[in-house]
Amino acid sequence: MVAANNPALHAWIDIPATSHFPIQNLPFGVFETPERGPRVGVAIGDYVLDLYALSQRGFFDDLDLGPNEPKMFRRRSLNSFIAQGRTVWRSVRQRASELLRHDNPALRDDETMQACLVRQRDVQMLRPVKPGNYTDFYSSLEHAANVGRLFRDPTNPLPPNWRHLPIGYHGRASSIVASGTDIRRPNGQRKAPDAVAPSFGPSQQLDFELEMAFITGRATELGHPIPIQHAEEAIFGLVLFNDWSARDIQGWETVPLGPFLGKSFASSISPWVVTLDALEPFRVAGPVQEPEPLLYLRTVDPHHFDINLEVSLTPAEGPATTITRSNSRYLYWSMAQQLAHQTSNGCNLQVGDLYASGTISGPTPDSLGSLLELTLGGTRPFALADGTQRDFLLDGDTITMCAYAEKDGVRIGFGEVAGTVLSTL
Amino acid sequence: MVAANNPALHAWIDIPATSHFPIQNLPFGVFETPERGPRVGVAIGDYVLDLYALSQRGFFDDLDLGPNEPKMFRRRSLNSFIAQGRTVWRSVRQRASELLRHDNPALRDDETMQACLVRQRDVQMLRPVKPGNYTDFYSSLEHAANVGRLFRDPTNPLPPNWRHLPIGYHGRASSIVASGTDIRRPNGQRKAPDAVAPSFGPSQQLDFELEMAFITGRATELGHPIPIQHAEEAIFGLVLFNDWSARDIQGWETVPLGPFLGKSFASSISPWVVTLDALEPFRVAGPVQEPEPLLYLRTVDPHHFDINLEVSLTPAEGPATTITRSNSRYLYWSMAQQLAHQTSNGCNLQVGDLYASGTISGPTPDSLGSLLELTLGGTRPFALADGTQRDFLLDGDTITMCAYAEKDGVRIGFGEVAGTVLSTL
Repeated sequence: MVAANNPALHAWIDIPATSHFPIQNLPFGVFETPERGPRVGVAIGDYVLDLYALSQRGFFDDLDLGPNEPKMFRRRSLNSFIAQGRTVWRSVRQRASELLRHDNPALRDDETMQACLVRQRDVQMLRPVKPGNYTDFYSSLEHAANVGRLFRDPTNPLPPNWRHLPIGYHGRASSIVASGTDIRRPNGQRKAPDAVAPSFGPSQQLDFELEMAFITGRATELGHPIPIQHAEEAIFGLVLFNDWSARDIQGWETVPLGPFLGKSFASSISPWVVTLDALEPFRVAGPVQEPEPLLYLRTVDPHHFDINLEVSLTPAEGPATTITRSNSRYLYWSMAQQLAHQTSNGCNLQVGDLYASGTISGPTPDSLGSLLELTLGGTRPFALADGTQRDFLLDGDTITMCAYAEKDGVRIGFGEVAGTVLSTL
Repeated sequence: MVAANNPALHAWIDIPATSHFPIQNLPFGVFETPERGPRVGVAIGDYVLDLYALSQRGFFDDLDLGPNEPKMFRRRSLNSFIAQGRTVWRSVRQRASELLRHDNPALRDDETMQACLVRQRDVQMLRPVKPGNYTDFYSSLEHAANVGRLFRDPTNPLPPNWRHLPIGYHGRASSIVASGTDIRRPNGQRKAPDAVAPSFGPSQQLDFELEMAFITGRATELGHPIPIQHAEEAIFGLVLFNDWSARDIQGWETVPLGPFLGKSFASSISPWVVTLDALEPFRVAGPVQEPEPLLYLRTVDPHHFDINLEVSLTPAEGPATTITRSNSRYLYWSMAQQLAHQTSNGCNLQVGDLYASGTISGPTPDSLGSLLELTLGGTRPFALADGTQRDFLLDGDTITMCAYAEKDGVRIGFGEVAGTVLSTL
């Protein structure tokens, strides 16, 4: 076990029992305040530990963090920090863990301590990375089968390739936005099956997709695949991801080259990147894969993670309703398999790339990761706590996703990713 | 007419009559020499005009090129220069035109003149931009119909949406490489229709795709579409583009989410970016669009360009064979339509994004833009000049594409984009 994961550890900061950010988590993010500007930080309880401030005060002096220290801690994205490599991320996280331990006076009793900690409620969290490339996979069997039953063939819902490879497609990197960014309802071209011709206007079938995504921490050379047993070494960490989707636009455009404008108007990413090290205790075996995958996708050790996922919908006026509860362990294809597949043709990785899981649906009706599935293609609206009905999203609706893993009294959380739908301009 | 386009202009440098780079062209690129490092330059005849050297010697002193001068001319990509905006590109191109005019002694007779010009044969040309986002359209009706006849329905080859919108998909930005970069044959998963199960190995159906691409010169805000009448203002210039394709990998993976690993192993881009200003004299009306597009895709003025395209295949040993001759005027959807569509849902642009046309095929058998079409899916191999046959590409084959527009004795060329296939590692 990584030392920083020890369930017995506790911090000298008072941390609420239900916090997503105990000393065992220590996820990385980028925050901003008017006084400090953008900085890299680590979440701890209700606070952010300011890594630039720590660096300036000499708390990393005995670590070798490379030539970009301290300026990599004063950037608008984690990319520069991530590019320093796994040894550096681990050193910094380990040092943060040491400095926060209840029995370590070094920071606790330092006169500049308060300058190194900022309340989360006083900061603006930014998009954690500037993604150079973004892939969206389609790795939940339940989701693919649900979609296939709606649009393909109720008796044979999975495409023939589905169980042989982690299907994915390239997404739009420019429109990935920070949690809290409002989502403008997109215009687009769509055609109802019985319409004579397509029309153009605001999407009438705006949806969310509950996903997780991983961020790569290493650049690779074109032509050099990553073998599956080394795939996880290239992963910096994980985030929550809402792949907003306009089903009517998507439906009309998608054959033959796949989703395009039905997706590229926005995707939302959570601010804190949880490391694989922090998630190590939550490693589980995934679903049995039948048929056995080809050699380049075959693994022995468990590469799935037991992370609880939850989505709530909050109308413009009225209380939130939890509309789904799922878990990342339901994913059929693991991140290691996704990354081995992505690079199997020699495709190169860049630092800060984003690889999303695809919608994560579970086996039960209350664990579906999109309105498309929850309402059977919009045909079965459901009631919210305020009594109103939803098939797809209305202007003013806020979708909030949250995620955490929990074991031995330790909760490793992702915080949340939220976005509110605004009317078309 | 832009002053720099005047067919009567001539330079004090001796320029061969068949050169792609007369004084009327002046495309931008990034070159490198061991002494100078990477620099932004303009092609003129057999030379490169070094913009950093011009800047250092004061030739731009009376222009307002913004706060990034001169360092934007000493970068590994054009992105920083492009980001300064259209007024700056135009000022620099106009100044280059003035300095190169036969009757202007300012540079010609300057004692440092030779330091501002480098022979093209003495430089390494780099990838001109670092693309943040890459879209590949599917805008040639002939290509879409040829592919549809092979894989969809010989009697109804076009998908129902094809004549209503410029179909496109997101491509992989990281694997876009400079002309001259060797192309490693990808491994991948594929399944012959009669095979029981898929297998993994080197692609047996490696192909090229003859495309042009445009590069955006402006960043836009999420949620703010570009109206079609302003779309071309956001375009910095055009390049030649080879969208290498592994047909067997693509065929097995592509349903339902589109091309992925069959494309993402490499795409090649030509080094010189030809401005829309230089191409102004070659503007032509495109094909009649029937049905008339929806309002957001409707234009009056001609937005197509008459640019000759040519592809040759050179085996490892043996002479080159010209295997196709096409023209960008065959494209059904214009760049203006593509960009208006791309942003119609609010998708934001970044400086240096790449938008490729899709394979450009013409109406005749000798104007097809891929081996897939030239050999009817590999079923009709053809002979090269050396007597060997090709269905798909062999290791050692070099594909060279070139393009130029010509009128009134002036040839506005793109130079070439070339790549040689290497065996799988």
